[in-house]
Amino acid sequence: MSRKIRYGMVGGGRGAFIGAVHRIAAAIDQQIELVCGAFSSDPEKSKASGADFFLPPDRCYGSFEEMIKAEAALPADQRMDFIAIVTPNHMHFPPAKMALEHGFHVLSDKPATLNLKESKELAAIVKKTGLIYGLTHNYTGYPMVKQARDMIKEGKLGKIRKVVVEYPQGWLATRLEESGQKQAAWRTDPKKSGAGGCVGDIGTHAENLAEYITGLKIKELAADITAFVKGRKLDDDANVLLRFQGGAKGVLHSSQISVGEENNLNIRVYGEIGGIEWHQKEPNTLLVKWLDQPMQVYRTANGYLSKSALAAGRTPPAHPEGYLEAFANIYKNFANAIRARISKTKLAKDDPANDFPKIEDGVRGMAFIEAVVASSKKNAAWTKLDA
Amino acid sequence: MSRKIRYGMVGGGRGAFIGAVHRIAAAIDQQIELVCGAFSSDPEKSKASGADFFLPPDRCYGSFEEMIKAEAALPADQRMDFIAIVTPNHMHFPPAKMALEHGFHVLSDKPATLNLKESKELAAIVKKTGLIYGLTHNYTGYPMVKQARDMIKEGKLGKIRKVVVEYPQGWLATRLEESGQKQAAWRTDPKKSGAGGCVGDIGTHAENLAEYITGLKIKELAADITAFVKGRKLDDDANVLLRFQGGAKGVLHSSQISVGEENNLNIRVYGEIGGIEWHQKEPNTLLVKWLDQPMQVYRTANGYLSKSALAAGRTPPAHPEGYLEAFANIYKNFANAIRARISKTKLAKDDPANDFPKIEDGVRGMAFIEAVVASSKKNAAWTKLDA
Amino acid sequence: MSRKIRYGMVGGGRGAFIGAVHRIAAAIDQQIELVCGAFSSDPEKSKASGADFFLPPDRCYGSFEEMIKAEAALPADQRMDFIAIVTPNHMHFPPAKMALEHGFHVLSDKPATLNLKESKELAAIVKKTGLIYGLTHNYTGYPMVKQARDMIKEGKLGKIRKVVVEYPQGWLATRLEESGQKQAAWRTDPKKSGAGGCVGDIGTHAENLAEYITGLKIKELAADITAFVKGRKLDDDANVLLRFQGGAKGVLHSSQISVGEENNLNIRVYGEIGGIEWHQKEPNTLLVKWLDQPMQVYRTANGYLSKSALAAGRTPPAHPEGYLEAFANIYKNFANAIRARISKTKLAKDDPANDFPKIEDGVRGMAFIEAVVASSKKNAAWTKLDA
Amino acid sequence: MSRKIRYGMVGGGRGAFIGAVHRIAAAIDQQIELVCGAFSSDPEKSKASGADFFLPPDRCYGSFEEMIKAEAALPADQRMDFIAIVTPNHMHFPPAKMALEHGFHVLSDKPATLNLKESKELAAIVKKTGLIYGLTHNYTGYPMVKQARDMIKEGKLGKIRKVVVEYPQGWLATRLEESGQKQAAWRTDPKKSGAGGCVGDIGTHAENLAEYITGLKIKELAADITAFVKGRKLDDDANVLLRFQGGAKGVLHSSQISVGEENNLNIRVYGEIGGIEWHQKEPNTLLVKWLDQPMQVYRTANGYLSKSALAAGRTPPAHPEGYLEAFANIYKNFANAIRARISKTKLAKDDPANDFPKIEDGVRGMAFIEAVVASSKKNAAWTKLDA
Repeated sequence: MSRKIRYGMVGGGRGAFIGAVHRIAAAIDQQIELVCGAFSSDPEKSKASGADFFLPPDRCYGSFEEMIKAEAALPADQRMDFIAIVTPNHMHFPPAKMALEHGFHVLSDKPATLNLKESKELAAIVKKTGLIYGLTHNYTGYPMVKQARDMIKEGKLGKIRKVVVEYPQGWLATRLEESGQKQAAWRTDPKKSGAGGCVGDIGTHAENLAEYITGLKIKELAADITAFVKGRKLDDDANVLLRFQGGAKGVLHSSQISVGEENNLNIRVYGEIGGIEWHQKEPNTLLVKWLDQPMQVYRTANGYLSKSALAAGRTPPAHPEGYLEAFANIYKNFANAIRARISKTKLAKDDPANDFPKIEDGVRGMAFIEAVVASSKKNAAWTKLDA
Repeated sequence: MSRKIRYGMVGGGRGAFIGAVHRIAAAIDQQIELVCGAFSSDPEKSKASGADFFLPPDRCYGSFEEMIKAEAALPADQRMDFIAIVTPNHMHFPPAKMALEHGFHVLSDKPATLNLKESKELAAIVKKTGLIYGLTHNYTGYPMVKQARDMIKEGKLGKIRKVVVEYPQGWLATRLEESGQKQAAWRTDPKKSGAGGCVGDIGTHAENLAEYITGLKIKELAADITAFVKGRKLDDDANVLLRFQGGAKGVLHSSQISVGEENNLNIRVYGEIGGIEWHQKEPNTLLVKWLDQPMQVYRTANGYLSKSALAAGRTPPAHPEGYLEAFANIYKNFANAIRARISKTKLAKDDPANDFPKIEDGVRGMAFIEAVVASSKKNAAWTKLDA
Repeated sequence: MSRKIRYGMVGGGRGAFIGAVHRIAAAIDQQIELVCGAFSSDPEKSKASGADFFLPPDRCYGSFEEMIKAEAALPADQRMDFIAIVTPNHMHFPPAKMALEHGFHVLSDKPATLNLKESKELAAIVKKTGLIYGLTHNYTGYPMVKQARDMIKEGKLGKIRKVVVEYPQGWLATRLEESGQKQAAWRTDPKKSGAGGCVGDIGTHAENLAEYITGLKIKELAADITAFVKGRKLDDDANVLLRFQGGAKGVLHSSQISVGEENNLNIRVYGEIGGIEWHQKEPNTLLVKWLDQPMQVYRTANGYLSKSALAAGRTPPAHPEGYLEAFANIYKNFANAIRARISKTKLAKDDPANDFPKIEDGVRGMAFIEAVVASSKKNAAWTKLDA
Repeated sequence: MSRKIRYGMVGGGRGAFIGAVHRIAAAIDQQIELVCGAFSSDPEKSKASGADFFLPPDRCYGSFEEMIKAEAALPADQRMDFIAIVTPNHMHFPPAKMALEHGFHVLSDKPATLNLKESKELAAIVKKTGLIYGLTHNYTGYPMVKQARDMIKEGKLGKIRKVVVEYPQGWLATRLEESGQKQAAWRTDPKKSGAGGCVGDIGTHAENLAEYITGLKIKELAADITAFVKGRKLDDDANVLLRFQGGAKGVLHSSQISVGEENNLNIRVYGEIGGIEWHQKEPNTLLVKWLDQPMQVYRTANGYLSKSALAAGRTPPAHPEGYLEAFANIYKNFANAIRARISKTKLAKDDPANDFPKIEDGVRGMAFIEAVVASSKKNAAWTKLDA
């Protein structure tokens, strides 16, 4: 099939943050094309944003509803293949639902929806329509995250016993939401962000990363969440004890008041005979630990890596890749899944084109958020994930 | 006063580990002299060990009781000033008690005693005798730990909100205690180690470090401890949520099954306007984080440090000091406190000679261990520290 | 002007390495479009490669000559704006010359040409045609490299005294060129690579980085180069003493036999009152050193950075960017320079659109290579750069 | 033999720096005893200093001559076994010579003497007297330095090709010697320091480390040294190309004007199949690099280390040891050599007690300094080491 996969964007107009990241991620591998967008609920702003990306005005819509309807009416060789949703959390479900119901695949920013109920409904719609739904838990796109997952899957570390996953940030250590900063404003507003603040925004990334790498599900958790900044309605700090199915234990903490921390996502996993450690800050390195041997420093793009870790890189050893390339890996695999669908190719379960977060991960993320909030309300009582 | 401070050692004969560390720590600054010892309960072994240190046979005793009595009977200008206790935990209290009751100061390895009850009794004896009791929570001896404490005390970080303290090790990931390894054997035996395994051996170090640096007391905790290695009677892994007096929250985890970790004691503290991060692995560095400024890398022996951080070093910048020097700082301050006592000098509260862990810290450590064990038994219910 | 800048690629067909990097770099910001290519000297392979990028067969040419002529004959609203040259070194000059002479701007992989003479001729052609010539010394595209340059320019470090720049790799530690590995084969062949092996391939990057960051020119050098691998015709290791105009001194070493090193480009610069240190391996960090203050850790995307360092990033703090984004910054600025030319906007000298390596840098690079080779032949005699 | 080895110190009174380091190094292992000293040329100051170490006044001498004579006259069971020389460079040779000629072993701070001629004379005296001479090139005392040496000796890295060794400091970036700072004053005074400034003070450490680890001798060098600080009589920066016997090449640079650097001694060695990297800043780690395998992180005190690396440590894994312990290893081995001499035990060549720098290393150090200075005077002409 000699064409690019086409997408329309919901949100992401001028002044937005994550929309630009999605567009770069889509562009990097030159296999995906932005063909339309509902970049803003203000039709003029939407057209102006679209012009920045060289889109014709008639493909810049004033609402996602308008976009989905109009695109559905276009000939097959012109209309978009999928929508990318880059709005605040409360606006994830409506466009996802409508797009699926009009035959479009969906790639959504995380968390999947505003609450667990919506996410389960969305899962049902995905199932019913049989369309492809992807979720940008982008950290799973890093090559060394895949290497860690592969090593654990192959039993290189032995049975997993302990997981420490953390995601401290410092950018909300002051009441930034009062300053007119848009990103802070909606993230601290329960109507737009959902029941979790920090736990929804980045705690879910930690949860998703832990489950992706270990292949284990969190069974129950005990959480103590806090809003340290006065007047803030949602938590800006979360400390969580984890118990995984199968007996592994863990600690997850995420924070947005950890002054001076940037996006310091880190994970350590220990099995019976080995351990791994990975830091988003230096993502091209995976530390691998052994019982009685020196620690090894695995680095991207080297021949000793797993097939999927190698495939997730684009450059030779020690040419560092970063966040955007990891994000692009979600887009690449998702687009390849669509390509397979178009060409009616059946993908093997372990085909890289299948390696992107799906609605099931979205449901788990929402269940995690709700469990954390519920546990914390009950003074950190153990609470099971409802997913 | 022109003489060295004299001590006798309880435990630490051939084949022991921590005894050698204590002797080096005492020797480094050349202000303290080993004059006698009850190195082993076997009088012959005790004498043989003493000979390694050039002690005359008549100062090498077959038991601490014998030593304390004999030394007490010596003329004042010969007898030891204090005893150093370097036995397994169950043998901390008896010699400490007896030494104090015979007029000797005591420097004990941690934890203070086998259980909380003993530690409270010991505190009463210390109070009654008015003698000096020190506890080798040696990590507080590091210069950059003192720098962190001083910056927090001076309010440089603002009000403290969050503490993350961790002490993972990997050496007990297999059932080492079955192999005849002495260190593993007594540490996993409740009769010798007490109610806590990993939590008593290293969790207390983490607890002590957090309280020392922040100046805050842990109010209550919720703990989930595990014995991962089959057949082990004591925990080898502990995950704990912390609440401090005054509202700060925290996470403490320690482990002896974290494969490939050595003695990876780390702490991060976040206040309203700044944060600090310290790793025992690279102890001469303190990372200092700010709201809107670049992180700073404080290093030992530089003029910009606090007085006590500077005083705790012995070498110029970037000549790394380590564990033994930190340990020696406990000995140095403790010996200086004795020196002041001998010369009837009253020490100011913030005199460095007062800067060593005392019986109060010992009681808190025991209360911490018992709270962790109690909380874990009640499925991680919040449990207050009884101290 | 509402269109993308258009380019044709020379080289970079299936199996090539740097061509793919250029295409990603061009694609990331979605402002540049690949419209044609002479991807291979075999017309069929060229078409097959072009099809991978969804190019129509009639824009996939069998030679750069054919491409340049055909594109020149196309209407202005279709033809390419510039060519990107991604061939081995000996094929840099011919397409660059011809493209310029047919009115096309040129973006070339480094080094500019096969030898110094060609580069001077090319400089004359660039001057005569008035067209825009860019050179992908991509490491200057990193945000923290720009931050370092800006701090030095503003005098923050005081007068520069010393530069240490190094680029060790290990991939040619064995005789890889005999194995059929294409990248190794042409790089070790003087006919294709030029007079310098390691020094031309990566030594020039180090030279360029040092001059870019410090704003100083290397005046003379003393070099000792070696071909350690038996039978290799070109150097695989270079050790060079540097003297800069104005009195600064330096050391430059590059190597392709430093086993285990990846692309370990590093630079340290020391002035009278401050110093900087940067590592490509962790490119989002710049270490800044001061006389009597703690070292500072500058990180990308923070408000305290210089305007140009901020502009060179695409993501928020601690979302690491890497090699491809740095490369893309060369493309972005180069394309903006073309855009300004099209719209007849005169760029200020310090406009970011002017911030990309030019033919002058190319000439200096060639002069550096020839000086190193000449000095080494004269047993490391001091040799001036002829540029 | 049940007694401590006894020493007298020359220099190192109140206000000195390196004397205190030597005393700690001697004390750490409790096998060596300070029994006398000529701490100052002022007899009163010497006595006052001695009192700080609890020495009787009659063993505190006003000159090294007095000390050597008086000690020689003492009964064998009281007099010192060796002298430790901790004076500025110009005062190394006279006491060393006299001590040897009076039957005392000598442990001297580096460099061995003020110039090459003296060092050769001293070598002859050592040979003639048959006494033991040690030199505190202390960095060779680090466990991981020994591990690197052992791996190279065993051929683990293959034939050595390249060495990069560097020792940047920043403390003399300003004209500190004018401020009354004693350490700076004598180090920048050719009469006290010798022909080399930075190159003598720390360049020799780099040279010694490179030869110790690789087992290779530097054959010739090309050096460019500079006095950057106006009015300074000796170099404060040195850049040197190295050629080793057997064909390895190298770069050595040392500096005292590298603002913000502490004692940043680093070395990288590359052989045909492996490489090592070591940093004094994090001395308990040795990075080991391989052709096609992940880098390994060797750490002190682990079972996989060489016998001598293990023996050079005193604590379990990840209890960091530092500069003082490395220094103490020189003292320990030197004292054990004396002990063997006393007990008439013949040491095997590879006995750890033989593993300390000797007069031959001292002569090479002086030859290195003189070659660097001579080469630099001849505009970096290649100059052979006269030793």
